[in-house]
Amino acid sequence: MTETITRIYARFAAETDGAVIPTSVRHDARRAILNNLAAAYGGCRDAAADAMLAVIVPLSGPPIAPVVGRTEMLDYTHAAWINAAIANVLDFDDTHLPTVIHPTSPIAPALFAYAEKRAREGRPVTGSDLIDAFAIGVDIACRIGNAISPGHYDRGWHITGTCGVFGAAAGVSRLMGLDADRTAWALANAATQAGGLVETLGFHSKSLNPANAARNGLLSALLAEAGLSGPPAPIEGVRGFLRVLSDKTDPAPLTQGLGETWELSKNALKPYPCGVVLHPVIDACLDLHARHALDPATVARITVRGNSLLKARADRQVSTGREAQVCLSHSVAVALALGRAGVTEYTDALVNDPAIRALGDKVAMQVDDSVPVEAAGVAIALSDGRSLEAYVPHARGSLGRPLTDAEIEEKLRTLASLNAPAIDTERLVATVWSLDDLADASLVFRQAALPKI
Amino acid sequence: MTETITRIYARFAAETDGAVIPTSVRHDARRAILNNLAAAYGGCRDAAADAMLAVIVPLSGPPIAPVVGRTEMLDYTHAAWINAAIANVLDFDDTHLPTVIHPTSPIAPALFAYAEKRAREGRPVTGSDLIDAFAIGVDIACRIGNAISPGHYDRGWHITGTCGVFGAAAGVSRLMGLDADRTAWALANAATQAGGLVETLGFHSKSLNPANAARNGLLSALLAEAGLSGPPAPIEGVRGFLRVLSDKTDPAPLTQGLGETWELSKNALKPYPCGVVLHPVIDACLDLHARHALDPATVARITVRGNSLLKARADRQVSTGREAQVCLSHSVAVALALGRAGVTEYTDALVNDPAIRALGDKVAMQVDDSVPVEAAGVAIALSDGRSLEAYVPHARGSLGRPLTDAEIEEKLRTLASLNAPAIDTERLVATVWSLDDLADASLVFRQAALPKI
Repeated sequence: MTETITRIYARFAAETDGAVIPTSVRHDARRAILNNLAAAYGGCRDAAADAMLAVIVPLSGPPIAPVVGRTEMLDYTHAAWINAAIANVLDFDDTHLPTVIHPTSPIAPALFAYAEKRAREGRPVTGSDLIDAFAIGVDIACRIGNAISPGHYDRGWHITGTCGVFGAAAGVSRLMGLDADRTAWALANAATQAGGLVETLGFHSKSLNPANAARNGLLSALLAEAGLSGPPAPIEGVRGFLRVLSDKTDPAPLTQGLGETWELSKNALKPYPCGVVLHPVIDACLDLHARHALDPATVARITVRGNSLLKARADRQVSTGREAQVCLSHSVAVALALGRAGVTEYTDALVNDPAIRALGDKVAMQVDDSVPVEAAGVAIALSDGRSLEAYVPHARGSLGRPLTDAEIEEKLRTLASLNAPAIDTERLVATVWSLDDLADASLVFRQAALPKI
Repeated sequence: MTETITRIYARFAAETDGAVIPTSVRHDARRAILNNLAAAYGGCRDAAADAMLAVIVPLSGPPIAPVVGRTEMLDYTHAAWINAAIANVLDFDDTHLPTVIHPTSPIAPALFAYAEKRAREGRPVTGSDLIDAFAIGVDIACRIGNAISPGHYDRGWHITGTCGVFGAAAGVSRLMGLDADRTAWALANAATQAGGLVETLGFHSKSLNPANAARNGLLSALLAEAGLSGPPAPIEGVRGFLRVLSDKTDPAPLTQGLGETWELSKNALKPYPCGVVLHPVIDACLDLHARHALDPATVARITVRGNSLLKARADRQVSTGREAQVCLSHSVAVALALGRAGVTEYTDALVNDPAIRALGDKVAMQVDDSVPVEAAGVAIALSDGRSLEAYVPHARGSLGRPLTDAEIEEKLRTLASLNAPAIDTERLVATVWSLDDLADASLVFRQAALPKI
């Protein structure tokens, strides 16, 4: 009898020797975690976070776990929930490029929340163990995503939620020391909790998807530990996750090279808080802004040349800052007019600013599928007949041109200074880089939260 | 511009005058709630419930809400979660026949949990308001189910979970007094939390599906109240619930006769703790048992004649009591040999009892689609050449032969005496029948729980 996929993943999570995880992948893990905290500082004051916290603070159990960039303390399942939401709310977190899963938001907050529980019990989770669990959790979530992409997302599944829950369940199961049998139950408990609709993107409801993935993944493992058993093939069974949530599955990526190649190395970190398809366009516009003293009034026409995916995802009219995160014309307008495309450029006020709108109205998209997704060209026709052009072959933050460690640090500093200026960012950055040597991984989120006033 | 389905439901939940709900539907509501408490007594000591409680008790917030048949007190969201699981764990709860949704388990526990919160705030929910909210919540959940049946369940969606969450969200929104705008947000928050796989049926993981529907529906309303907004068409949008979770939608049942016909009147209550397709078979076997002093050793062959759905759902080999709830041969064997098919007949021990197994091995299924789903025939060939036959046109508990009020009461007494003998069942039964007149609906679940020791 062939082992089920579920069983293979359960053994992978329970039995992999952390020593097989390459040094470069461990560094990718630390980068992803640092970037996730940066993204969380971007999101920690978002209206969605405020609404979610207003509901859960009065419902919280023992308040042992911190919230990034905030003073509230929560029970560790609610902390996993809100920290995942906060990190993903601006879509400024990482992106596993083959699937557009944002892997760290649903997974890391679950692991760190569980680490709080263990720290309180006097049995801390080491930083090294947390990195192992994180790399394995991300790998399982993204491999499942690979197997069902692009159809799963195209059908309307918010893949960060649907696949993230497996990563959180597998990672927490490993930290718990569950054996393969119980880890398989955790994966079953996760499979039946997978969900989240693309329809919610651009709206507050979207934040429930990563939040539920984190909390439900954590709960899946806790429930398995307590004996809540599941079916043997929840992932590939006849009424299992793959067949129910996907119309077509490519089985190869599920297990090919498992434990040898790592999906974390396909994980890109964003310089801009908007859809990755927009990043090369913004790079080109920032380049044009830097090279030319551009007066928007002199712009006649802006032509963006790019992949059809760019058109499908971002060529649209919007009216809110949140919707603008997937809006081509707004992104072009702010980058060209202001020379910036950060969190402060994706606000309702700026979307409805007449000057920005007027510039955005001059943008037209020209589809050219010879341009890869991580590239784009921008051509500006000026009213005096001159023309300015820029072509970006690899967007900043793409795999061809990854953010440097220093750029991630700077992203964290910038966003923390905006929304949580009391954070000692230098101490936090140093702690994350030293995660592999920490005796107690919970230190990270404790340093990432604001002290209770 | 046509109103979205979401908007129509939101106005239905927010603005319907409870006076339009017919007396017979109000009585169906009370019957469903009484039956749900009965089912919960059947499930309150189940291993799945124990495992789930072991996880959530230490995580609970303010413990204001009771658990049916148990002493634990929980915050009201966790109470909604576990009460839904307990009521559904044995599949002994109600069944909306057109969809096989178990509507009361994901909806009523959310409403009663919210009623606890309100009682503690000194603003109790009246029993009459709770019945209104319940009837409306069930109606929305089942109408959505009607629109996507049978394909949605056949694909592998545990429809009690996927549709139940809408009913809980709509019902709680109404009790909160949310306006149509906020109710629409609650429905969006519910849509993106819809989930649950048929693959888990027969396993502990299954209980997460109704549990999550109840808690997530409740949370959807709480979050909407706090300002967590959603997309305008989460149900019928391009990447909304219907298109993502169903391959084919019949739009008519979504709104046809809304506020005039009520899905609660298609809700059947079970006399036996197993799949409804098995009920006419059990009726026939109990009839044969009562009419003949049957010695299993003299049985040569048992032929069950029934609808192809019976074969698809229940003609299988099993090894646990839980799996036996959808097993034809076991159900036939216990009913014929013991003259009973209650909770005590669906145990691991009895499934593996050699005499029961031997009798079950003599069962063969003969598909005859001229036999409706609620009917079945059983023919026994004895070794002396004689033959015994019974045909049941309408199973007990089917719409053609509904359980009487007295039978529901007796179901509750029997199951409470088994798992929660300290309950004052006469007082509880009287309270449920008087629900429409109660000033504080939370009295029901308080009387349904065991006093804290």
